[in-house]
Amino acid sequence: MPIKLSPFAPKDVKKFFKLDGIKVSIAHCGLKKNKKEDLVLIKFDQPSLIYGAFTLSKTPGEPIIWNKSIIDYEKVSAILINSGNANVFNGEAGRNSLRKIVKRLSDDLCVSQNEIYIASTGVIGELLDHNKIIRKIPYLIKNLKNDHSTWFGAANAIRTTDTYAKTHSEKSKSNRQIVINGLAKGSGMISPNMATMLGFIFTNAQFSGLAYKKKFFELINKTFNCISVDGDTSTSDMVLLISVKNEDKHLKIDNSKKQKDFFKILETLMMKLSQYIVKDGEGASKFIMISVKGAKDDLEAKKIAMSIGNSPLFKTAMAGSDSNWGRIIMAIGKTYAKIEPQRISLRFGNFLILKNGKSFFKKNFSSINRYLKKSEIEINVELGIAEGSAKIWTCDFTKEYISINSDYRS
Amino acid sequence: MPIKLSPFAPKDVKKFFKLDGIKVSIAHCGLKKNKKEDLVLIKFDQPSLIYGAFTLSKTPGEPIIWNKSIIDYEKVSAILINSGNANVFNGEAGRNSLRKIVKRLSDDLCVSQNEIYIASTGVIGELLDHNKIIRKIPYLIKNLKNDHSTWFGAANAIRTTDTYAKTHSEKSKSNRQIVINGLAKGSGMISPNMATMLGFIFTNAQFSGLAYKKKFFELINKTFNCISVDGDTSTSDMVLLISVKNEDKHLKIDNSKKQKDFFKILETLMMKLSQYIVKDGEGASKFIMISVKGAKDDLEAKKIAMSIGNSPLFKTAMAGSDSNWGRIIMAIGKTYAKIEPQRISLRFGNFLILKNGKSFFKKNFSSINRYLKKSEIEINVELGIAEGSAKIWTCDFTKEYISINSDYRS
Repeated sequence: MPIKLSPFAPKDVKKFFKLDGIKVSIAHCGLKKNKKEDLVLIKFDQPSLIYGAFTLSKTPGEPIIWNKSIIDYEKVSAILINSGNANVFNGEAGRNSLRKIVKRLSDDLCVSQNEIYIASTGVIGELLDHNKIIRKIPYLIKNLKNDHSTWFGAANAIRTTDTYAKTHSEKSKSNRQIVINGLAKGSGMISPNMATMLGFIFTNAQFSGLAYKKKFFELINKTFNCISVDGDTSTSDMVLLISVKNEDKHLKIDNSKKQKDFFKILETLMMKLSQYIVKDGEGASKFIMISVKGAKDDLEAKKIAMSIGNSPLFKTAMAGSDSNWGRIIMAIGKTYAKIEPQRISLRFGNFLILKNGKSFFKKNFSSINRYLKKSEIEINVELGIAEGSAKIWTCDFTKEYISINSDYRS
Repeated sequence: MPIKLSPFAPKDVKKFFKLDGIKVSIAHCGLKKNKKEDLVLIKFDQPSLIYGAFTLSKTPGEPIIWNKSIIDYEKVSAILINSGNANVFNGEAGRNSLRKIVKRLSDDLCVSQNEIYIASTGVIGELLDHNKIIRKIPYLIKNLKNDHSTWFGAANAIRTTDTYAKTHSEKSKSNRQIVINGLAKGSGMISPNMATMLGFIFTNAQFSGLAYKKKFFELINKTFNCISVDGDTSTSDMVLLISVKNEDKHLKIDNSKKQKDFFKILETLMMKLSQYIVKDGEGASKFIMISVKGAKDDLEAKKIAMSIGNSPLFKTAMAGSDSNWGRIIMAIGKTYAKIEPQRISLRFGNFLILKNGKSFFKKNFSSINRYLKKSEIEINVELGIAEGSAKIWTCDFTKEYISINSDYRS
């Protein structure tokens, strides 16, 4: 079944900025059909600092279990990514496959096993033929490069139902030498808490310490954990941030101004990559931002925003450009969060629907309906209870989503 | 847009059993288009015992707020039901509409306001024109009857996107005089905790006391709260059980054998009505039972069963008769419930997929795929942790669901 290119696919691709100390190679090992590339090796010249955020699923894939067991060392020398098979729920056999791959990489690259990260995406519960991967390791090592086309090829190789490759780059404003490059994948089984998405972020900025790790998780919560395609949480996925090691002291983040600037571009990049995932949501025809303000606290605001964003009734209404705002009220109500109907205000874009519980819907009917025909929609909810707020991004639910998912396997 | 009749619509309708002391009338008041009936009055000769279960939504409709305020009196003299408008989120105006209707009914029927129940279903957030309803009250009172065709007409009048009227009757085995009749509606915005469904159950059995109320709620949790169409919880809906008052001492439930027998037929009837709702799930082409056993406790079992049943990825796989069982593992994992992969067993019908974590999928591949082409599917999960169990009923997610819901309003 051919999948249509998302209407939100970027028109032109920004090239990765030059970032030394890191190389990449791609190969076809046979996990994907049609000779498509399905294997990526990323190699660091020196062991580099790594932070990772992983799925909270209780049926995690073998790569998740492995990576979590080594993440506390905070050092990475290589990352191997495959698509076509997620290596989830394969029991002892799945564990052995992963270990054989890690051992072979460790031997051939002469790096510690504790510095080798694995990421897999694809079908769950099918045995991973590790020999297919192992056979390609010498080829991958021999072909390591650091050019744009190989990086873009890597972003392509990690796709499953994605309709386009997702890459983004940012450069520091205060120090033009500092750059961040990132690639990601994901288009279904997307909900917060690290659903089917892989994100790999590399920077030449040199830093260490708890403040950076904390900030990384804070940004994960504001970006990758604020998107939802279908409310389904995957077993496999992760976002990694790597400070690629180098000795250039100009790249050290050694004052608070530099730090602030770095965090800013990191946030921009993480936001961009995570929004790319929603925009490539399976069958998506609309990109929707939901903002909730005035909740009891940030957690309740996010719960409400996600309840709206995950509601099939809301998502199908959006697909039909239908101004059935009652479904938003329903989705707010089903969270059991603290609300008072007469304090709720609601806007579609700038168009008022409710002001302190009073309806302006009839008055603004035609402009609202015109607005909903757009491909990018904003839903603004104000609860008037306290100061809690959240913003999430989602897409609509179309017949295309059903098509894609009723025969993904075949 | 014409909606296709559900493939699960019952071939022939069982008539209501004779039940004295209760009458019903129907009318078209203009809330629904095309002169379709949209108003039902049910009147009891004497104030009768009533129990009610209501939505937990924090944005409940006015009827819910009203009924909850009087349910502790446990007496009912009349129930007025309208379709076409849910009277939700209309603020003070909605409250006034409801009160005017209640007052008029109370005056015209000469019964206490505390014995008048209201149920409304339809669009949220549109002002209810109570005059349309009030104007019809004299007609409704004049035309009260107790025949099959009027009861069936009532089940029709309360429909929204339902494709068929839902009624069922049961008769006690030990005392053929004791009967239960029930009607219900619902096909979308269906998830546990009283989602868009209305259920009205009448019996001539005479009883009172906490044991019956407790049993009613227990059965609600096993039936109406164990179905899900789309995971969306409505603002409006309720199930009422009424023991229609009469002086016939043969109808008294005065020993434990009679009680057991009554509870059994009550459960059968509640199960039947709630399954009718799932079988009429918007766009449903498959009726799916999900059984989870061996969980930490019943609550976790239900959480897992609902997580599977509400997963868009699982539901779309079912629509495509796709044996992608990894999506069930994903849905188990995303609940964060206590599990151990090597103890999980999974069957589609009687066909083994996993036994203690080991896959038999390849071995049974062709029989599993044949099985999934059926219109009624059973998913059996065994967790092997402890004794908790749950059973829920749901349907698949088809393109038809998207069609129905992208232009419900228009």
